[in-house]
Parts: sequence; structure tokens; C-alpha cells
Amino acid sequence: MAKEKKVEQITDMEVDFAQWYTDICRKAELVEYASVKGFTILRPYGYAIWENMQNIMDGMFKKTGHQNVAMPVLIPESLLKKEGELVNGFAPEVAWVTMGGSEKLEERLAFRPTSETMFCDHWHNVLQSYRDLPMLYNQWCSVIRWEKTTRPFLRSREFWWQEGHTIHETAEEAQAETEQQLRCYADFFENVLAIPVVPGRKTDKEKFAGAEATYTVECMMKDRKALQGATSHYFGDKFSRAYDVTFTGRDNKLQYPFQTSWGSTTRMIGAVIMTHGDNNGLVLPPKVAPIQIVVLPIAQHKEGVLEAAASLKQRLTDAGWRVKMDDSDNSMGWKCAQYEMKGVPLRVECGPRDLENGQCVLVRRVDGEKVTVKLEELETAAAEQLELAQKIMYERALKNMQDNTYEAHSLEEAKQLQQEHGGFIKTMWCESLECEMKMKEEGGMSSRCMPLKQEHLGDTCPICGKPAKKMIYWGIAY
Amino acid sequence: MAKEKKVEQITDMEVDFAQWYTDICRKAELVEYASVKGFTILRPYGYAIWENMQNIMDGMFKKTGHQNVAMPVLIPESLLKKEGELVNGFAPEVAWVTMGGSEKLEERLAFRPTSETMFCDHWHNVLQSYRDLPMLYNQWCSVIRWEKTTRPFLRSREFWWQEGHTIHETAEEAQAETEQQLRCYADFFENVLAIPVVPGRKTDKEKFAGAEATYTVECMMKDRKALQGATSHYFGDKFSRAYDVTFTGRDNKLQYPFQTSWGSTTRMIGAVIMTHGDNNGLVLPPKVAPIQIVVLPIAQHKEGVLEAAASLKQRLTDAGWRVKMDDSDNSMGWKCAQYEMKGVPLRVECGPRDLENGQCVLVRRVDGEKVTVKLEELETAAAEQLELAQKIMYERALKNMQDNTYEAHSLEEAKQLQQEHGGFIKTMWCESLECEMKMKEEGGMSSRCMPLKQEHLGDTCPICGKPAKKMIYWGIAY
Repeated sequence: MAKEKKVEQITDMEVDFAQWYTDICRKAELVEYASVKGFTILRPYGYAIWENMQNIMDGMFKKTGHQNVAMPVLIPESLLKKEGELVNGFAPEVAWVTMGGSEKLEERLAFRPTSETMFCDHWHNVLQSYRDLPMLYNQWCSVIRWEKTTRPFLRSREFWWQEGHTIHETAEEAQAETEQQLRCYADFFENVLAIPVVPGRKTDKEKFAGAEATYTVECMMKDRKALQGATSHYFGDKFSRAYDVTFTGRDNKLQYPFQTSWGSTTRMIGAVIMTHGDNNGLVLPPKVAPIQIVVLPIAQHKEGVLEAAASLKQRLTDAGWRVKMDDSDNSMGWKCAQYEMKGVPLRVECGPRDLENGQCVLVRRVDGEKVTVKLEELETAAAEQLELAQKIMYERALKNMQDNTYEAHSLEEAKQLQQEHGGFIKTMWCESLECEMKMKEEGGMSSRCMPLKQEHLGDTCPICGKPAKKMIYWGIAY
Repeated sequence: MAKEKKVEQITDMEVDFAQWYTDICRKAELVEYASVKGFTILRPYGYAIWENMQNIMDGMFKKTGHQNVAMPVLIPESLLKKEGELVNGFAPEVAWVTMGGSEKLEERLAFRPTSETMFCDHWHNVLQSYRDLPMLYNQWCSVIRWEKTTRPFLRSREFWWQEGHTIHETAEEAQAETEQQLRCYADFFENVLAIPVVPGRKTDKEKFAGAEATYTVECMMKDRKALQGATSHYFGDKFSRAYDVTFTGRDNKLQYPFQTSWGSTTRMIGAVIMTHGDNNGLVLPPKVAPIQIVVLPIAQHKEGVLEAAASLKQRLTDAGWRVKMDDSDNSMGWKCAQYEMKGVPLRVECGPRDLENGQCVLVRRVDGEKVTVKLEELETAAAEQLELAQKIMYERALKNMQDNTYEAHSLEEAKQLQQEHGGFIKTMWCESLECEMKMKEEGGMSSRCMPLKQEHLGDTCPICGKPAKKMIYWGIAY
């Protein structure tokens, strides 16, 4: 007899979105809290999602000529301090190593909050001629930022990320790299994670400490809050000058290279949860799902069912999918709920009657739609359903973003729209910090970005009435 | 005209082995020193070797059911101290974080020197029933051990590694896991890195702090010194008890699981350099070489040569190899020296005369042997040459190890053999710490391992004359 195992319940997102989110993180076994305050553990299922993200992104980076390296995790304070803006931006969040073994260190060492300084220090040592350029590096690692409040994936004292760091002969090449990597992120979000994004430029207030320009891909979660997906920075030659990175140019004179950096983190898993999840749990985009298809035999004690299910599993595995068959003695109800919680994109059910009819049933996680398919068409049908799932997920997320993007022509209207609907509020803007601060303090919204695709909504800044320079998105962000 | 670029020279290994080693590390662009004392940077070429090692090992681990996770990098002192032997073993080498932002921490946090404690803490929280067992985890990360003297890859304050951690229902299962992972390492060393190993058990003196038993694969370098390749540990239920990790057993009673851990590090790159390298530089085993085949067009300005070389490159790439074509304007002499320095296993040369004759020349890095092959047989010939290169590398290393393993029947003889020849000295042993210390102090050798394949060399311990229990290997180790 099937053992009745309790199906774990999660809070409805309409009741308490934050609790719903935490419930998924725990019940889908993505993360667990550690004994170190503010730190999290990526459990096998959560880490497997991250691994899939890494594999795909790493391939994209390598295709455009980037190479992976490993830099030291500790940065001497004096090195970190050479560039003033960067250190001011990160100093309040740095964890310091002050003891090595039983000895007090002469100089304390920062656990990297980001590695621009180490890369510059390395380039200072190895860069010689324009022939060595560009240097296109990337690093997969964890960093620490000593945050006060933390939430799984979204804000954690330690998080896992990739940080790309490049130097180029000319400003134009470095700018092109910054834009290329932004497009790479947009591509990854939209075509892999099925999350639509608004690519744009950050305001000076919101840009990365020390950068000349920061670009971002902004997403909208199901609760209509904004989430910064990934960022790409252009530094000009500011760090080169601070760290004395030089090369002999084509004119035989010493020159400073131009620099970029770009990063994306495990917070993308948070974005996936809050973009696609529902009250039954996680909904994973097929390309990053650790299990893409789960095969569940129905009435598996009946003759031939288990063998048939195993053969379906094998065929789907041979077709290149990540497949699991669950022939445990848990009930069918529990199994369905379990794989829904874990967000497995496609479920294949096959019981005695299906087999008699030479068919099986495919169930899409995203909308629960069932399709009966002939056994001989399994591979094609599964591929179609997974592609369709990806499409439906993207379109739903896009609709959520489009339906919740509002145009405002006064601070009051912007504020009211945000309070009533949430989402992105787009307005014109004069580019002054004053107006940005006013929107923050009175409207309760931070600037998200100045979209690359600009629209003309009017001639004046709705906050101060002065001539407008840019169209900008505002929102409440994670 | 071809530009004459200077070929970098390295010290001959017969003149100064240590300097030869460091020269290769630098000139093959594997590592660079960082501004942080005792820390190194893995440069793109060095990191690419590590990535290839990671990919292959990770596949091996996953095939036997292991899952990757990410644990916090910082460990509270109180947590680290719960198991006395472990903390005593590692305390002198721990780097401590004492400040977070501008605040002094209430409890200092250790940068992980190894993660047994974090895994136990996690299992304490999540393990419930025997149905959850085994838990087979692995983590790829960096660790810090505050060493006094450092050398690239061999001893560095930060190094990159994988640490496997598993818990099991029974002691037998955990012991089997320990042995399985040791065999996995032996397989990786012999069949991937082309490095023969002596698998065996460490003495109590040399075992991992807190382990009940430590197993190792020991290798011999070209200077006849020993290098510990990778280790696999059995903990019994010692840590489970110290960290209160329990599960409900089949008898419905609370039980302690049995634990293992096993690790291998970037020092394997050091082992590759010192096992296979020669006075022209690095010699890489084909399976981990970032570039497996380099195609060099001869007289590339002549009509058709570049196109032909490009087509060879494409064919070899399509056959699944990692291939580079170098059509830069550097001289042929410089290019050959450069790719020899970098240890590229196979060079393909093609010039106008070769093309006229419908052939090209393959040159093996390991012994410089040249083979002329018909163009249409390129793929088969390349595969054969790479397989042959792997075989030659392994056999040469095996011969070095066999030729330099000596049998001794007294401490004096052991000492003399070591002084005259270096290498492994095998003797019988009574298993007393006293005799082990005596061999260390008077013979200048540490115990390497008690090989799994035991031989009977006599009945008594040659050091104290008491009855012998084991055959043991001694050597001078990195």
C-alpha cells in the first residue's frame, strides 16, 4: 500500500508574499540557514540550479573570448583604498581578516566585496603592450558584504557570483564591451530564465561605486516590485590611473587602458522564484531545471508499468533531457505535489490504461495543462511541451510587466500609481539628483534605470518642471 | 618578414629543480604572485587546466551519486571548536575575521580551513531518518591555511579544491565510500593525469586531524621526492557525536551516522609539472590540456597555406579536440618553443611542400617524435598520437617510480638509500610512533603510506627489531 506522506503546505502569495517566498526557498530545499548569522547554505537542489546557470553563462562568456581566472579572496586594506570612491562605497560592508593563525596581521585584509582592485593590481604587474589587449577575464567565486538584514538569494552576507573584468586599448572598445555584456545578460534573462527585462542605464546616484556608467537589466516580480537582475559597468581609465596600470601603445608611449566589469549573482534564483512561482511552489524554466522531466508510473505494482516507465525515462534521457523516474512507495498525490513544489517543468504519467492504449500523459508545471501523446511520439512531444512551457512562462511574465508599467506626469500621480498598482512608473526626468531624491523621499520609489529604448512622454521633468533630458523608470526594489 | 621574438629560457631541472619548477609556473603563465603575501593568482592558462580537472572529476563524482552544495566560507569559533582534534590540528593555520564593516564581531569567524564542521552543523539541522541517508555532498571552493612558507600550487595560503563530505547509515557503508573515493582519485591520477600512484593508508601521526583513518595516493616527482596527491578520510561517528548529528534508524531509535570526507586540490597541477615537465617547459596530459593540439602553418605567406591550416584546425575541432591555430607573425622557432613551454601535447605543422604531397607533420610534445601523415587520415592519426602521448607519459613516470623504490632492512640502510638515490624506501614497520619519529629524525624521512598492496619484506621492524605489522613507504615529501 502506498504510504501517506504529508504534503507540505506553503503560504499563499496573495496572503503574504514574503512568507510565500521564504516557504518556497525552504520547502523546495533550495537553501538552509547556517549557524553563521546572515549566511545561507545552497543545498543540492538550489546549487544544481546555480550550476546550470553557470554552465550556460560560462559558455556565453567564452564564446565572446573571455577566460576564467582565480584571484586571491583577501585584499590588503592599502590596495583596496587606492581608489577612493570604490572603498567609500564598500567600506561599511567589508569583513576584515585581522589574525593569521595566532598572529595579529600588520595590515588587515578585506574579504573581497568585489575584485576590481585585485585585477588592477595584477594588470599593473603583467600588462606590457597594446598587443596584450584586450584582457577579457571572468571569475566565479563568492564575495562577502556585511548586510544588516538578509533574505535567501536576495541579500546575504556571502553570495556566489561571476565578476567579469576587462581592459581595452580604447574607450570605444571598453564601452562596446560594457554594452555587449549587458546584452548577454538580457539574452540570458529572456531566453534562458524566461524573465523579460528592461535594459537601461543607472542614474549617477545608483551606479556602482567608482564607475563612470552602470547599465542594468531590471525585472518585475509577481508582487510588482522591481529587481535588479545583473549589471555592467564602464570605468573609463579611472582605476587604471589609480592603480598605475599602463601599456606601451601603438605610438610607443605609455597609456592607460580602459576598463569594464560586469556581474550576476545567485540572486537570479530569487528572480526566478518570484517571477514564475505560484501557490503550489517553484516553477523552473526548463533550461536551468535540475530535473527537466519527472516520470511517474501510475499503479506501478501492475505488470509492465515499471518497465514501461523506465523505458520512457531512458528514451527521454537519451534525447538529452535531465530526467528522473520516481518509483518510490509514496502516493501519487504526494509525488505530484512534491514535483510541483520543486518546479519540475514537465511530468510524464503512465499507468496500465495508458500503456494499453499506447500512450502517456504529459503535464506542464506552468499551467497544469495535460496532453495525451502516443508513446512513439514521446521525444518530439516532450520537446514541444518544454518549449511551449518556456514560451508561456515568458509571455506571462511579460504581460505582468507590461500591465504594471504606468506613465506619470507628476510626482503625485507617480506616487498614487505606485500605491494603487505597484510596478514600474515611467516619467520624464531632468537628470538632477534633487528630483531623484524627492521621488525617493516623497514618492517612496528609487530610480530603476533610464531604459535604452527611450520614449518621449513630454518636455519637462514632472518633479521640478525644468526641461527633461531622459525618460526614466521608478519602482520599489528588492 | 617574421618578427624575431626572444624565446624565454628556464633553468635546467638538473641545475636547480626548485628554480626550474618556479620558472615553468611563471613562464608558462600558470600563476602570478599577488600583492597579498603567500597568495597566488591562477592566470587563464593555469585556471583552464584546473577547469578541465574539475570537469572530469565532477563527472566522476556525479556518476557515483554525489551532489554539489555551497557552504558558508566563515565558521564561528565555537562551532569549529566542538571537535577537539580538528581544531587543534588546524588552529595554528586559521585566518580570523574579527570585524564586519566597522563593528567588532562578538565572536570571531574562521575562514574555512576545511568544512567538516559546517557540514555537520547542516546535517544536525536537516537529517531526520535513515531514509535520508546516505547524503553524498561535494563542494568546489577555496580554503585558507596560514602557511609560513609558500610555493605556487604546492603550498599557498589560499588554494582551490574540492571537499567531499558524506554521511551513511552504517560504518561499513562509510568505509566503502572512503575506499571508493580513494580509487576514484587513483583512477584520475593514473588515467587522466598519467601519474602512477601508490594508494595506501596514512599512519596515525600523518592522518587528518580528527579522522579515524586517512587514505592517500602518493606520487613520485622527477626529483624523486614524494607528493601526497589526494586523501580520503573515514571518521566513524566521532564528528556526528561531537555535533549531535542523529537520525531515526530502522529500529526507530536515534542513531549517529558514519562520516567520510575526501579532497583534492590545485596542488595536482604542481604534481603534473614535476612528473612530466622537462627543460623545455611544461608537458601536459592531453585530457587536461587547455590546448590539446596547436596547428602551425609553415611559410604561411605562400598561397593556400593559411587556408589549409585553417581547414585542419576546423577538422580537428570538429573531431572534438581543443585546438588553436597560430598564424601570428612570430617566427616558427619562437612558436615551437612557446607551445613547448606551454606543454601543448601535439603540434601539427603544415607547409607548402607538405600540402603538395597531401600530408602534414604531427609532433608529440612528450618526446619530440615526428610523424608524417596523409591529410585524409588526420583525425585518426591525431587521436592515435594523443593516446600514445598519454601512454608514454604514464610509462615514463611509472619507470621513474619503480626505478626509485628501494627496499631497506635497517634504518642505516634506509637513510643511505635515500641520500644516494632519493625516492621511496620501503621497509617493514612495527606501527609504533617511536620508530616513525626515529625514521624522521635520524633517517630524515616521513612515512608516506602503508600501501594497500602489502609485501612481506621480513618479520621484524628494522628500526626497533620488534615484530613487524605492516610494510610502509618512507620518503622526503613536498
